[in-house]
Amino acid sequence: MSTSLSNSPVRVVPLGGLGEVGKNMMAVEHGSDIVVIDAGILFPKEDMPGVDLVLPDTTYLRERKERVRAILITHGHEDHVGALPYVLRDLNVPVYAPPLARDLIRVKLQEHHSLRGHQLREVQPGDRVELGSITAEFFQVCHSIPDACGIALHTPQGVVIHTGDFKIDHTPVDGKKLDMQRLAELGQEGVLLLLSDSTYAEEAGYTPSEQVVGTALDHVIGDAPGRVLVATFASLIARVQQVINAAVKHDRKVAVVGRSMVDNVRMAMENGYIKAPSGTVLPIKELGALPPERQVVMMTGSQGEPTSALVRIANRGHREVSIQEGDTVVISATAIPGNETMVHRTIDNLNRQGARVLHPRIALVHVHGHASQEELKTMLNLVKPQYFVPIHGEYRMLVAHAALARAVGIRAEDIFVLEDGDVLELTPDAAAVVEHVEAGHIYVDGLRQYDMRSVVLRDRRVLAREGFVVVLVRLDRSTGRVMEEPEMVSSGFIDKDTQPEMVEEAMAMVHQELDRGANQPMEWTYISTKVREVLATYLHRKTGRRPMVIPVPVEV
Amino acid sequence: MSTSLSNSPVRVVPLGGLGEVGKNMMAVEHGSDIVVIDAGILFPKEDMPGVDLVLPDTTYLRERKERVRAILITHGHEDHVGALPYVLRDLNVPVYAPPLARDLIRVKLQEHHSLRGHQLREVQPGDRVELGSITAEFFQVCHSIPDACGIALHTPQGVVIHTGDFKIDHTPVDGKKLDMQRLAELGQEGVLLLLSDSTYAEEAGYTPSEQVVGTALDHVIGDAPGRVLVATFASLIARVQQVINAAVKHDRKVAVVGRSMVDNVRMAMENGYIKAPSGTVLPIKELGALPPERQVVMMTGSQGEPTSALVRIANRGHREVSIQEGDTVVISATAIPGNETMVHRTIDNLNRQGARVLHPRIALVHVHGHASQEELKTMLNLVKPQYFVPIHGEYRMLVAHAALARAVGIRAEDIFVLEDGDVLELTPDAAAVVEHVEAGHIYVDGLRQYDMRSVVLRDRRVLAREGFVVVLVRLDRSTGRVMEEPEMVSSGFIDKDTQPEMVEEAMAMVHQELDRGANQPMEWTYISTKVREVLATYLHRKTGRRPMVIPVPVEV
Repeated sequence: MSTSLSNSPVRVVPLGGLGEVGKNMMAVEHGSDIVVIDAGILFPKEDMPGVDLVLPDTTYLRERKERVRAILITHGHEDHVGALPYVLRDLNVPVYAPPLARDLIRVKLQEHHSLRGHQLREVQPGDRVELGSITAEFFQVCHSIPDACGIALHTPQGVVIHTGDFKIDHTPVDGKKLDMQRLAELGQEGVLLLLSDSTYAEEAGYTPSEQVVGTALDHVIGDAPGRVLVATFASLIARVQQVINAAVKHDRKVAVVGRSMVDNVRMAMENGYIKAPSGTVLPIKELGALPPERQVVMMTGSQGEPTSALVRIANRGHREVSIQEGDTVVISATAIPGNETMVHRTIDNLNRQGARVLHPRIALVHVHGHASQEELKTMLNLVKPQYFVPIHGEYRMLVAHAALARAVGIRAEDIFVLEDGDVLELTPDAAAVVEHVEAGHIYVDGLRQYDMRSVVLRDRRVLAREGFVVVLVRLDRSTGRVMEEPEMVSSGFIDKDTQPEMVEEAMAMVHQELDRGANQPMEWTYISTKVREVLATYLHRKTGRRPMVIPVPVEV
Repeated sequence: MSTSLSNSPVRVVPLGGLGEVGKNMMAVEHGSDIVVIDAGILFPKEDMPGVDLVLPDTTYLRERKERVRAILITHGHEDHVGALPYVLRDLNVPVYAPPLARDLIRVKLQEHHSLRGHQLREVQPGDRVELGSITAEFFQVCHSIPDACGIALHTPQGVVIHTGDFKIDHTPVDGKKLDMQRLAELGQEGVLLLLSDSTYAEEAGYTPSEQVVGTALDHVIGDAPGRVLVATFASLIARVQQVINAAVKHDRKVAVVGRSMVDNVRMAMENGYIKAPSGTVLPIKELGALPPERQVVMMTGSQGEPTSALVRIANRGHREVSIQEGDTVVISATAIPGNETMVHRTIDNLNRQGARVLHPRIALVHVHGHASQEELKTMLNLVKPQYFVPIHGEYRMLVAHAALARAVGIRAEDIFVLEDGDVLELTPDAAAVVEHVEAGHIYVDGLRQYDMRSVVLRDRRVLAREGFVVVLVRLDRSTGRVMEEPEMVSSGFIDKDTQPEMVEEAMAMVHQELDRGANQPMEWTYISTKVREVLATYLHRKTGRRPMVIPVPVEV
């Protein structure tokens, strides 16, 4: 390795988070080598109507394709692996992932018929992967999915530690704890930079262990007078295991409904991530033959997703399961911000049918998978980094995490609160944000992809609030003159049938305005501007609203 | 009073809540007398795009107009008084309200130019109002606005107690506590029915006193290195008082920005609800002349409302205030479900400009105004009602409150979880839901009002997700035959400029389909059905989406 290479700084570039910096993709570079950490999707926000999912924009990486050595995966959640089928189309590089993530990715790539040609490799905690001048070392962390890892990147400038999503659970369901020994050792040897999960940096204290949920589920399933329905995330494999444990203990059988959860549970059982005595997990039809007090049903729908099993059941629209007297429903997940209303409606509808519903606001049936403030301080003090960058969080969470870092003694000038696209360059001597690169998002909507500047989304927001009015203006094909009164078609604006006189008056006004110049042919741009002006003013005065007005020329 | 009259049952009818039963309006009836409790507005939910506000539908009351004796107001919050300007148009009856509510209503009716002819009367806690066979007695409660009352309705069948919104604050800011003595006395004499606030029935324990917020604000304002900006609800008069108290103590002056808050604070100071040494509250221009560490600015925007002062400041768009180094922003309110994302963005944007932001998730700068479980049980045990109806809550909260009532010893068959429009009839001998009446909502959208079955809202939801396609089909005026290829106008669907070949292909397909029958004239209904079918299938296959397709005939 040449001196100039080893002297080149480390570059850190968060590339995709939709407000949560670096959540879904990050690049770490040294010399000519780039390694990418995670490639996840993001779920669209309320102001993106009709958008199905959001991908990180890989422009930056595509432009440096030949330098990208690998994609390293921290764990198998969608927001960390879900973009791989799209990203691998442009970047055909090896993917290194812990066992469960590897298995989940394989299922995903098969679904997308895009497995062929990709190099998907399993890593175990402790494994090291050489990627040019960077050596990646995976280490075990706890999170709400088994086999979660953090990554230590050994570079000629020093060690960069990326925690992935983590919490410090001293009693995890699978017994696999945060590797504090290795982190302490790295800290002792000297760490250049820590990149650490900020999702719960605003939360004081410690995040409870998954074990408290196990105890709560055991009591609920043991005490329930009838059937127990449990809704959670399809990927929350540890929770499925806890439910199965409680069911076995209380002599109940378990069925799983909903395709994504059925697929995940099958894979997890085949590969040993979920352990259950033979005959415990039954098809839903066989389960139904047992008395209610011997039944547990697991399903998705903890976020109130309209097509999920739980929501169909709540709306009396599920083919196989309907609420019966004595049912207990457990919603074993917290609502992601933005989903609260849908979750609340689902609970209300289940209550209306007589089900008892337990959810995290009223019972300890869920804990999340992210470190709270005391755990974050533990991580900072174990690793003792020279520089600190809070990641995986909205801006205020990063700010809160930065405050924790200052509190444990890291100097303010060594802490960098970045935004997606910021390029941080660092050596043991100096660190600075040196440039800002393109790090937008791609919106996937049905089968198409849009970039974030798309007018389609802007139009939808206007349509949602105001509706539209299309005005048909007949023009004489030969003279270009306006003929007859315009016609109007609208939707989402007014109940037209109840307002015919308003529509008539509006069209008469437009016609009158256009008639003034009717002796000579008019430019369409002039006509359409006039139509917009006249209608916008009239309709706003009459209705207080500003629908989208679209004049259309009809040459006759 | 005839025997038959005094034998007639009491009827209780929750009339407006948008999911929160009886929150905004309730009717209590005996014989020929109807009294209405509260007349509030509701804020539209996410699935009501473009709706500005929602009113209770007063059809039931209008049909029984001559029997309505009065509207009784429990307190001055918008969701309890905001519909009065609309409701009084149809029901010109006396309105009885505690002093602050009376003053807020007066301001509101003046804004609507509808004060004339209305009978707005002040009541004090302890006052009794005779309304035919019903006597209303107001009693003091604590809530997040001064002068909040509950109402005991004395009827020939017994006493009906309506708590209004309440909490049990033993150390309220204004010193006015829940009148436990009177409630205990009524309980001792015997209460037929308790209607009690369920907003926080899912919350274990006690709601903290407003005093803890006072202490927190005192520390924040005392310790802040520079200016302090405090955002809260315009109606949260007690909070304004706490901020003024802390400002006075720490030798700061206070300015208020934003019209609604300026108006409310002026009225509250004029009428003595807010007390401040002369010269404490200054115009914002004068405040700016002081050093930052002597400034406090109060404003709205705690819900991230786009036009509020705080959000304008966060977006660098306020005329008078911009964030400067050393600013502390206090968001002294919790986000109402559905507003979280907007509040979070506001905090992020304030952080980006370098402000320190304190909000209820990280500091004790807000407590809400509703009783938690231990307080609700206290109310139940003070009043010892024969029957119990949980009100002011979404269905799951009512269910949780019902469980508390059972826990303190009320029989399950004496507890009624109602929905808006349910009519509960009761005497000391029996109680039952006897009918369900119309109790919908009116959506106010700009200057118009819609009922809840309006297709306008349904259309907007489709437009928001999918956009629309208008297809112009030219028909020969004389023969009715289709002429030329149709044209298409769309918005919110695809970037048309980038997809011209798709539009062309779609129009060609539609034309081809219509051409088959082109030798004879076709019915428009046939044509429009065909156009919809062909396009819906084609566009879904090509884009995965289902835009609204609107065929329009153009006769030429």
